[in-house]
Amino acid sequence: MSNNSKLYLALVHFPVINKTGEEITTSVTNLDIHDISRSSRTYGVSKYYLVTPIKMQHQLLERILGHWESDAGQDYNPDRHEALKLAHVVNSIEEAVAEIMAQEGVSPLIAVTAAKLGANEDGMEQLKARAIQANRPVLLLFGTGHGLAARVLEQADVRLAGLKGLANDGYNHLSVRSAVAIYLDRWSQA
Amino acid sequence: MSNNSKLYLALVHFPVINKTGEEITTSVTNLDIHDISRSSRTYGVSKYYLVTPIKMQHQLLERILGHWESDAGQDYNPDRHEALKLAHVVNSIEEAVAEIMAQEGVSPLIAVTAAKLGANEDGMEQLKARAIQANRPVLLLFGTGHGLAARVLEQADVRLAGLKGLANDGYNHLSVRSAVAIYLDRWSQA
Repeated sequence: MSNNSKLYLALVHFPVINKTGEEITTSVTNLDIHDISRSSRTYGVSKYYLVTPIKMQHQLLERILGHWESDAGQDYNPDRHEALKLAHVVNSIEEAVAEIMAQEGVSPLIAVTAAKLGANEDGMEQLKARAIQANRPVLLLFGTGHGLAARVLEQADVRLAGLKGLANDGYNHLSVRSAVAIYLDRWSQA
Repeated sequence: MSNNSKLYLALVHFPVINKTGEEITTSVTNLDIHDISRSSRTYGVSKYYLVTPIKMQHQLLERILGHWESDAGQDYNPDRHEALKLAHVVNSIEEAVAEIMAQEGVSPLIAVTAAKLGANEDGMEQLKARAIQANRPVLLLFGTGHGLAARVLEQADVRLAGLKGLANDGYNHLSVRSAVAIYLDRWSQA
């Protein structure tokens, strides 16, 4: 199938859960900004949202992104600069959705991923087919910490099947950076 | 195709090239240890070799891995401990190959990846079929820096096709962590 649906990505720092299932806000990491920007740029993602309600983190992010916007940053590593242009900080998932609507004139299909979603999972082919048919962009949400809060999972339009490794014992602890890369590759192949 | 060939992975810090094509030795990073160990464990990799001739880096690695071997490390994060058990430091690619031969009784098929390899590239399906037919394990080599040195690429048994993103302009600057995750996922699907 040809790739004629736009893809947006959001790395969610709130609302996500911790080890014991409580809702928390995680910290933005420098690494998630860089690695996921590079994957996003390589796979043609339209915009990469970092979602956090914490104002201090907005300032931190803007400082990092600002450095790479500077002449020095551009000269030092133009590829890095090119990737980081996609990264954008917002307060909430709703704000990302509103921005996409303003940009595209239509709301995105919201797709979530999780290691264990249970029933009613879709494959990447189904998501892409649905987006193309509806002529809507896709917003792919990834949770930090121990994953997206249940209320986010429940409200999504599409729940993508989790990644299953080959470990016989079901071990499945990919970093969010690795999971994003794999889903983007699958999107490119769907 | 069923997965009945063993997969080994090596992250090479020497010999690799820098931006201008010179042969260099890169530094091991804490992040590459952790992220790639988790991906390796999730996808059933038999062992993850960190290749560096620098003795100081061996000591650093053994300290990091030793921490997670400790009772405190195991209690704090048993999943992390489980993943890091796969990580192992060696001086050279040859040493990794010799270890695999000693373990498996047969030399591994050596497969390399690179953003731009040129002609004679194979797909993951071909690599897996060849390994199964020959009843040999596979050693997948990844280069840090700007990629594996030409002499490593030339001596490989199999040259895997590079990852092609969807960026219209051919931008392709995945982190090695992301590239490893994608190749492991493709191996699991082949």
